[in-house]
Amino acid sequence: MKRIRDYEVTVGKLPRGEKNKITDVKGVRVGHVTLKDGDVNTGVTAILPHDGNLFKDKVYGAVHVINGFGKTVGTIQLEELGTIETPIMLTNTLNVGTVSQGLVRYMLSINTDIGVETGTINPIVGECNDGYLNDIRGLHVKEEHVFESINNASTDFLEGAVGAGTGMSCFGYKGGIGSSSRKINIKDEEYTLGALVLSNFGIKEDFILNNNDIKPMLYENNIGVNITNTNCNIDNLEKGSIMIILATDAPLSPRQLKRVAKRSIVGITRLGSYLGNGSGDIAIAFSTANKIKHYEECVTSKVNVINENYIDFFFRAAAEAVEESVLNSLITADTVIGRNGNRRDGLSKSLD
Amino acid sequence: MKRIRDYEVTVGKLPRGEKNKITDVKGVRVGHVTLKDGDVNTGVTAILPHDGNLFKDKVYGAVHVINGFGKTVGTIQLEELGTIETPIMLTNTLNVGTVSQGLVRYMLSINTDIGVETGTINPIVGECNDGYLNDIRGLHVKEEHVFESINNASTDFLEGAVGAGTGMSCFGYKGGIGSSSRKINIKDEEYTLGALVLSNFGIKEDFILNNNDIKPMLYENNIGVNITNTNCNIDNLEKGSIMIILATDAPLSPRQLKRVAKRSIVGITRLGSYLGNGSGDIAIAFSTANKIKHYEECVTSKVNVINENYIDFFFRAAAEAVEESVLNSLITADTVIGRNGNRRDGLSKSLD
Amino acid sequence: MKRIRDYEVTVGKLPRGEKNKITDVKGVRVGHVTLKDGDVNTGVTAILPHDGNLFKDKVYGAVHVINGFGKTVGTIQLEELGTIETPIMLTNTLNVGTVSQGLVRYMLSINTDIGVETGTINPIVGECNDGYLNDIRGLHVKEEHVFESINNASTDFLEGAVGAGTGMSCFGYKGGIGSSSRKINIKDEEYTLGALVLSNFGIKEDFILNNNDIKPMLYENNIGVNITNTNCNIDNLEKGSIMIILATDAPLSPRQLKRVAKRSIVGITRLGSYLGNGSGDIAIAFSTANKIKHYEECVTSKVNVINENYIDFFFRAAAEAVEESVLNSLITADTVIGRNGNRRDGLSKSLD
Amino acid sequence: MKRIRDYEVTVGKLPRGEKNKITDVKGVRVGHVTLKDGDVNTGVTAILPHDGNLFKDKVYGAVHVINGFGKTVGTIQLEELGTIETPIMLTNTLNVGTVSQGLVRYMLSINTDIGVETGTINPIVGECNDGYLNDIRGLHVKEEHVFESINNASTDFLEGAVGAGTGMSCFGYKGGIGSSSRKINIKDEEYTLGALVLSNFGIKEDFILNNNDIKPMLYENNIGVNITNTNCNIDNLEKGSIMIILATDAPLSPRQLKRVAKRSIVGITRLGSYLGNGSGDIAIAFSTANKIKHYEECVTSKVNVINENYIDFFFRAAAEAVEESVLNSLITADTVIGRNGNRRDGLSKSLD
Repeated sequence: MKRIRDYEVTVGKLPRGEKNKITDVKGVRVGHVTLKDGDVNTGVTAILPHDGNLFKDKVYGAVHVINGFGKTVGTIQLEELGTIETPIMLTNTLNVGTVSQGLVRYMLSINTDIGVETGTINPIVGECNDGYLNDIRGLHVKEEHVFESINNASTDFLEGAVGAGTGMSCFGYKGGIGSSSRKINIKDEEYTLGALVLSNFGIKEDFILNNNDIKPMLYENNIGVNITNTNCNIDNLEKGSIMIILATDAPLSPRQLKRVAKRSIVGITRLGSYLGNGSGDIAIAFSTANKIKHYEECVTSKVNVINENYIDFFFRAAAEAVEESVLNSLITADTVIGRNGNRRDGLSKSLD
Repeated sequence: MKRIRDYEVTVGKLPRGEKNKITDVKGVRVGHVTLKDGDVNTGVTAILPHDGNLFKDKVYGAVHVINGFGKTVGTIQLEELGTIETPIMLTNTLNVGTVSQGLVRYMLSINTDIGVETGTINPIVGECNDGYLNDIRGLHVKEEHVFESINNASTDFLEGAVGAGTGMSCFGYKGGIGSSSRKINIKDEEYTLGALVLSNFGIKEDFILNNNDIKPMLYENNIGVNITNTNCNIDNLEKGSIMIILATDAPLSPRQLKRVAKRSIVGITRLGSYLGNGSGDIAIAFSTANKIKHYEECVTSKVNVINENYIDFFFRAAAEAVEESVLNSLITADTVIGRNGNRRDGLSKSLD
Repeated sequence: MKRIRDYEVTVGKLPRGEKNKITDVKGVRVGHVTLKDGDVNTGVTAILPHDGNLFKDKVYGAVHVINGFGKTVGTIQLEELGTIETPIMLTNTLNVGTVSQGLVRYMLSINTDIGVETGTINPIVGECNDGYLNDIRGLHVKEEHVFESINNASTDFLEGAVGAGTGMSCFGYKGGIGSSSRKINIKDEEYTLGALVLSNFGIKEDFILNNNDIKPMLYENNIGVNITNTNCNIDNLEKGSIMIILATDAPLSPRQLKRVAKRSIVGITRLGSYLGNGSGDIAIAFSTANKIKHYEECVTSKVNVINENYIDFFFRAAAEAVEESVLNSLITADTVIGRNGNRRDGLSKSLD
Repeated sequence: MKRIRDYEVTVGKLPRGEKNKITDVKGVRVGHVTLKDGDVNTGVTAILPHDGNLFKDKVYGAVHVINGFGKTVGTIQLEELGTIETPIMLTNTLNVGTVSQGLVRYMLSINTDIGVETGTINPIVGECNDGYLNDIRGLHVKEEHVFESINNASTDFLEGAVGAGTGMSCFGYKGGIGSSSRKINIKDEEYTLGALVLSNFGIKEDFILNNNDIKPMLYENNIGVNITNTNCNIDNLEKGSIMIILATDAPLSPRQLKRVAKRSIVGITRLGSYLGNGSGDIAIAFSTANKIKHYEECVTSKVNVINENYIDFFFRAAAEAVEESVLNSLITADTVIGRNGNRRDGLSKSLD
């Protein structure tokens, strides 16, 4: 499947990782369950920060709420404690409860101590609204899809109209899952930062794609044309959302991860988003470098942290990886005709 | 059932409302579902801000996270938009997903436009961990309990070991649901502020009850004795949590409601809490004074707001009502013997 | 003086206000004091929200900290109370104290009640670091410059290397003060949103200027060329900052103003900023629509607020006005040779 | 001078440090300049986190805004970067600008690189309003008082009506500077947490002092009497504020320090505060355990952090040390007759 780099679109200045996916960060895996049947176009995507037991060996994490018109769960504790202790799940807006409960059930199934010998568990579930293409009121996602998506997780995974991305739309095209990564070389150290997005934001008139070869094709298809909007019309507002997951093997503290998560804004605004009112835009970042043991007994621990003087490279990497992830979500997604015959074209159709 | 005022305990200086409950705020109703059967001691409590369709006529609301070791859902959007559009549900920590999904299903059932003709819905669900008395891993709460608790809602409701409070503990005693209210007279205006708590925090040694008649009885029972804790022992840490719901008929803006919600801290620290690490303490406040229409068509609206110069009275009312609510949750709760024979005594047993 | 629109650069889709400056918002005035003498290249800029006594008649305001590597004062109270009660002052980083003290002295001089009959005053002062062109260690700004800049304030004001902008740099060029505005027509209502920036951020290699006629000229001058930065070099990091002031006559609440202030990020990222670590990026927004009386006696007040369903147009206006303001700051600034012979060229030199 | 422990008042359960002052944390020093002459009753207090060059060797720090009706400067950067790079200064509200500028000048005087070879400096200055006893409009604090207070700093320092505390009031008595400390023994490790407060909050009717020997004396003096305040009277509102500085030698990260800073609320609410609207209540915490070098060249650093499972002891220590600090500020302060003959009695007068 062709990705955006195959169209000679260059995003930023840092080198890409080998797979150019979030799974370039060692240990990270992604799994999908895709539900696709007539009006049903939805699913679940799981992002696993590492191969072990996440409850027993937590990772540092952070969340940045770009625009809070969203229903992501798990962020209060993530903000307070700076740790992630479950896989991160993505799904449609109205099924967050089911996926959250399924994730709790999954964590209970592999940790017999939770709730009895020790405390509870903080599930993290993000969402976008796929109601245009999906029968979202049908609540088609079930708890078993959580188990299935986690069990499906691998370092190689599909992009586009798959998993939680099955029914999403972006800039008037078919959106969904996209990913990208960047390598950061500082002195003798090499780090990787990867992004995965669930794209579901933006309107066609705002889309910016800066490439001299592609732009003319888009213009022919009436995109990006500059119309003076003197008459503010409420019918064509940005109503979507985006979930952004960032992973890195660099030792960033929760505070540093939050700063990096903020820079994912750059990637989406460069493509034309105004961070619209109706768009729940949320970025979650984690680092695989330090593990925080649930049953830690030592009074203090030594943790590695990146010198803040070098953090700019991670900011840049986040911005670039997010922008390219969104483009990958667009270019890899096939056309979907969904609920009530509603239709979103794959961007690649306009370019090939 | 005797409440704390029946023991001549006075909290603060403002006059109580008629019922001395959150339902003194006109339109507010509370409903419980109690699940109590051997090891099962849990439930659901619903707080309804008004009698109408909350999605169509939202109320201003705010959340203050006192300590974020908690799993409350719905707070991101509440923070961003300042509105509440569903009943507020309380339950046990590991069933938040089910209750959240049940609440979405309930809202869909009474609003056929959600997800198709208009956007989605933001469910608000709070929780505490009742694992000491309840088989919390059994996940005994079901989606239908959401419907049932909402349908049960009335202006008169039980306190103590009922609804979401069935299995909760507080200061080493049986905790649960408690409520109180205060009247605020400013010039010719009379306002009411009510509180409802789900109490599940504190350790016995820290409990403070300032009443000359009751204290001796508590002291005999070894409470509040001053022990010099030179040897920091991890076995007796505050591991609970508290959910605090504040309602008022005064026209407070979301920003003002957030300020008022913060003052609920006063009520719990006065009783002996140190806002412990393991305690997820979250306060949600709403005002019934202004309704925000989902399908508002006017470009601007006139809303009433309280003069900030008078807001101190609402701070004081929140502090007092929360403190008395916690005491009511303790004094009204009967002794419960639950999971594995674990036992929490009702505070009234020590006093009568 | 030519502004960016005179180069046929179009930013966004909304119509500009008459002056295309922040002073298109009725009542807003801006005044400068420019200190320019050899190594001294600095100054003060005052933004006055209205013509009256700001302490007695406050305006609603909000702040959004884009990146907090900055020293702006007055934000804690602005965040808590949502009101602005002084002119907003801008100056260089190391003179914030002097300007803050000068502003307090100014407010005392026109309000004999402050500190005796009533409370104190919350000065708001923003800053950027002009140390490259200015002898910033010399602390050349004095308290009287605060009085002078306020007294200079008018609806017509200079842009470029003036006032607080005298010594600032942006994208490797001379930066400084820039302004722009947008008109927002909703149904029968017309609103104006204006922006003023103190631009001091970005590095030359990152600058993006999307205009087919200008870009070739910039490319000839080696800007925007895509270099693969495989070797992360700490010597060329974004170290500047930007202060962004937004004004509107639309009745936005403090919460709504904060949401609008956030969208100023769009304007700076579109031009190439990655919101660098060393860049203190802060946006302050206010609305002139409601006045909040210091000595309000009524228990409640009716305030107008914009229907949140229409807020997208203000987001878009903020993004566009900020982007054009930065471009205006660049294009209107003359070349400055300052401290130690350090030099920043005016962008217009590269284009004319 | 007698302190509160000399009156057999016990606060909490943890053991006190040797001096029972913030300077029990090794390296911390405190210095005052007291301005006392007729209507002039004000001053400056400096808290130095360590003996070295704070700009070159920063300490981890955090701020928690309890109530933001305050004018503390330096918090935006402290929040973003989690480091403190100057002494922390305290003074009266209207002189924050002067003290902030004086602190910049002091830091420039000992760091010739600031502003030329490297970035700028982030001064931290807190304040309370001493206008009742002090001619605050006279702006009597000068920049040289910053230098003087820093140069005066020692491990032994006065409490009560000294330094920034010279003109402050607390619970209707003379307030000012107070300090206390706690020792925390975990396994084989011993840590110290110290607090210093500038107390200027509370009204007499709300004061709570739980000591069987002292209370009767206070009651005779009409304090703490329970009056039903059915008529909300705006004339007797809490209008003060409190600055709280916490220091520890335990290796807490900025996130952990913020959590600890939050618990200082417990100390002030236990004494009767309702966190009144007009009270700017701000807590700043720092740890001396890790030094963060300004010119760090390593890509990563190893830092020690406390196991979060043990953080409760620091919460408790903060609550206890703050409560005792406020009591020490009250009990050590002599009666002051200040501006216009306004008078605040020392609490010790009521007890001896």
